[in-house]
Amino acid sequence: MSADEFRRAAHEAVDWVADYLERVESLPVLSTVEPGAVRALLPAHPPENGEPWAAIFADLDRVVLPGVTHWQSPNFFGYFPANSSGASIVGDLISSGLGVQGMLWSTSPACTEIETHVLDWLVELLGLPEQFRGNGVIQDSASSATLCAILAARDRVNPAIDRSRLRAYTSNQAHSSVEKGIRVAGLRPEQLRLVDVDDEFALQPEALAAAIADDLVHDLVPFLVVATVGTTSSGAIDPVAAVVEVARRNDVWVHVDAAYAGSAAVVPELRPLLNDGLDGVDSWCFDPHKWLLTNFDCDVLYVADRSALISSLSVLPEYLRNAASESGSVIDYRDWHVPLGRRFRALKLWFVLRHYGAVGLRAHITRHVESAAWFAAQVDADARFDRVAPANLSLVCFAHRDGDAASEQLLRAVNATGEAFLTHTRLHDRYVIRVAIGGTNTERAHVEGLWSLVSRLA
Amino acid sequence: MSADEFRRAAHEAVDWVADYLERVESLPVLSTVEPGAVRALLPAHPPENGEPWAAIFADLDRVVLPGVTHWQSPNFFGYFPANSSGASIVGDLISSGLGVQGMLWSTSPACTEIETHVLDWLVELLGLPEQFRGNGVIQDSASSATLCAILAARDRVNPAIDRSRLRAYTSNQAHSSVEKGIRVAGLRPEQLRLVDVDDEFALQPEALAAAIADDLVHDLVPFLVVATVGTTSSGAIDPVAAVVEVARRNDVWVHVDAAYAGSAAVVPELRPLLNDGLDGVDSWCFDPHKWLLTNFDCDVLYVADRSALISSLSVLPEYLRNAASESGSVIDYRDWHVPLGRRFRALKLWFVLRHYGAVGLRAHITRHVESAAWFAAQVDADARFDRVAPANLSLVCFAHRDGDAASEQLLRAVNATGEAFLTHTRLHDRYVIRVAIGGTNTERAHVEGLWSLVSRLA
Repeated sequence: MSADEFRRAAHEAVDWVADYLERVESLPVLSTVEPGAVRALLPAHPPENGEPWAAIFADLDRVVLPGVTHWQSPNFFGYFPANSSGASIVGDLISSGLGVQGMLWSTSPACTEIETHVLDWLVELLGLPEQFRGNGVIQDSASSATLCAILAARDRVNPAIDRSRLRAYTSNQAHSSVEKGIRVAGLRPEQLRLVDVDDEFALQPEALAAAIADDLVHDLVPFLVVATVGTTSSGAIDPVAAVVEVARRNDVWVHVDAAYAGSAAVVPELRPLLNDGLDGVDSWCFDPHKWLLTNFDCDVLYVADRSALISSLSVLPEYLRNAASESGSVIDYRDWHVPLGRRFRALKLWFVLRHYGAVGLRAHITRHVESAAWFAAQVDADARFDRVAPANLSLVCFAHRDGDAASEQLLRAVNATGEAFLTHTRLHDRYVIRVAIGGTNTERAHVEGLWSLVSRLA
Repeated sequence: MSADEFRRAAHEAVDWVADYLERVESLPVLSTVEPGAVRALLPAHPPENGEPWAAIFADLDRVVLPGVTHWQSPNFFGYFPANSSGASIVGDLISSGLGVQGMLWSTSPACTEIETHVLDWLVELLGLPEQFRGNGVIQDSASSATLCAILAARDRVNPAIDRSRLRAYTSNQAHSSVEKGIRVAGLRPEQLRLVDVDDEFALQPEALAAAIADDLVHDLVPFLVVATVGTTSSGAIDPVAAVVEVARRNDVWVHVDAAYAGSAAVVPELRPLLNDGLDGVDSWCFDPHKWLLTNFDCDVLYVADRSALISSLSVLPEYLRNAASESGSVIDYRDWHVPLGRRFRALKLWFVLRHYGAVGLRAHITRHVESAAWFAAQVDADARFDRVAPANLSLVCFAHRDGDAASEQLLRAVNATGEAFLTHTRLHDRYVIRVAIGGTNTERAHVEGLWSLVSRLA
């Protein structure tokens, strides 16, 4: 492929993307294709000869778009958002163009050093503890970051202890990735204890302390607590400072999963809610790809002390040896996660922080938090609905007072319009509608539109 | 950021990338910056206000490029290649623009169905066994794919068996990711047995059979063999058919790591070397991001039977439940790997297969295999050098007859010119220079240039 041919195709792609982003609001949010419908449009066999770009681009509209659920629509309120932004797309494009593989410092020093530096900027931007400086790493997802924390915590336990005696703790509202990580790490499901939560779905430190005490009596070995700042179901915030206090007495690793809510700490006024107790934790992660304008995938993991992480994940074959690594003066991020290879993901994050600046990032978060408060107030004022969890940040959870069937029917009705997309959970044994506000282009008007729709269809 | 602002910045980025790819051949391949030099160019604090695009783009040349080791240079012969191509960059750009998160079929059916379909195309393009159809999944790297195979194999063992009795086998030439995966999965290093290889660095099936027999005598439980098609050090190809025969007798999962070499199976003449015995394996992975023109990250994992994989990796919380998943008629790829979230990576692979077609892909591989044979012939004809491993595909391994110091000095001298980049390994207890041919734009002329350089500096 000649440079000119690439230039032409890539410019066309830029215009396609820009056009898409201009019209995405007008498209039905949830794809309505039937299973198999996309595949049915594709040839059974791969092409023997290369196809022209016109044919490839045509299929974006013919094949791809009908099968896309539009995460970038300002009317996407499902799950948590998957923020994208022009700045991030441009950074990602440069990363693709450089085609760098940053497994070692020496395989592209800029890939490593910009990452370390930008993650130090985030320590400042989010008001995180100083011990995180120099100790951040980009992972693909919070699932992988949590797995790394589990591995580091598991492996710093005295190896003479039989691993079947290890016990981890998290609330019964924690993300499914905790259970998955425990299983991946070779521990049995019963080695993860789910601790009770309070009425606002936050972990009860007294219940945690009791569970640990009970296990100690039975000669088991507590090694890890995963606290959540912003649970997936309801946005609940575990009391990290109290968790740390309990954990410290028992030499237990504390990992905090702030995948969704962590981004909100760019707003200083929200830090008492989000960052209390973080100076005592061993690891903390959040997803700029959820709510900080950076394309998937981009999770950031910080550790208070990198040695446990590296000791858990480092394997050094001859073919990776090099002078810089052996000098001890550089970071080789391959030892900070499961995969060996790594893309230059720091570029997109760097571009986002520079394009928006702290002021722009704060405005992005504040707009959504204010819109969520407004939506919660509408729910509270409407006799048809119960709000079933605090709207701490940008997630509002509510149910129809007529019961689960009414709530489920309402959610389906909203999604069927194509004008907005919502997902559900269960809280207090009720079917609950979640409104997750946080799209890059989600403004107050979209949230007001959603309320009109909900109110009309209820 | 307005659509117009994005359009302008992204077009500028396309031109920057196109210019970069036109001039990359003229840049010193290995970055020569000192540790800390890149960070020293960056402001200590993040910007309070957003910066103009001109400042951001200027830093690509000022800060980034001096710190880049140019994996896309046609004179990069280190490690294994990390192929990129215009078609892949364009596909990746569209993926960034759509900003889709494809964890479930329903969260973007096209993301799932195009992936399944394109991986079926690859079954045909690579001549893989029919049982892989419908059973492929994109992972970030072969490390992660191998981890998934380890987990699936581990978890299908009768749970009543104490895991400390499990034993895995791989050759002493296998990639470091096997040892890392074993550790991640909670098994002790001694639970992985490294089997002896023959003079050409391929696993000896008799040694494997003996190791398994020995372990059975000691009441241990063989559960996994990882065979390699194209080892990292020398490109050795384990005798998969013989491995399968040994494994089958003992109900042991066979995973094949073809990370580097798998792509070469697009050339039918190479399939007897690469694919023999694959119809009996349980899983197989390769990296289109190494040698099939697709940007990092893109590994493909196939399993013969998906149920073990899914059973090992599936956790289903309420907030992910949906009608399509419960119908059983769709694939939810979140259950096929460790992370929950996933990017639309199939787009770039789809674009690559369509842009090049089978004919273009075969030409890409054949050019490198022929160049490697030519380079190996030069080495063989030169009394200063020993070739220390078969040049099966596109990797040539040689050493200076004057000993390790001479080889190491030669490698350093080559790299110091900036005109080419090589890495090393150890084979037969010798320091060995590896020449890995496979760059997207690496032509015969570049390989001839490398030979001139080596010959002159030796």
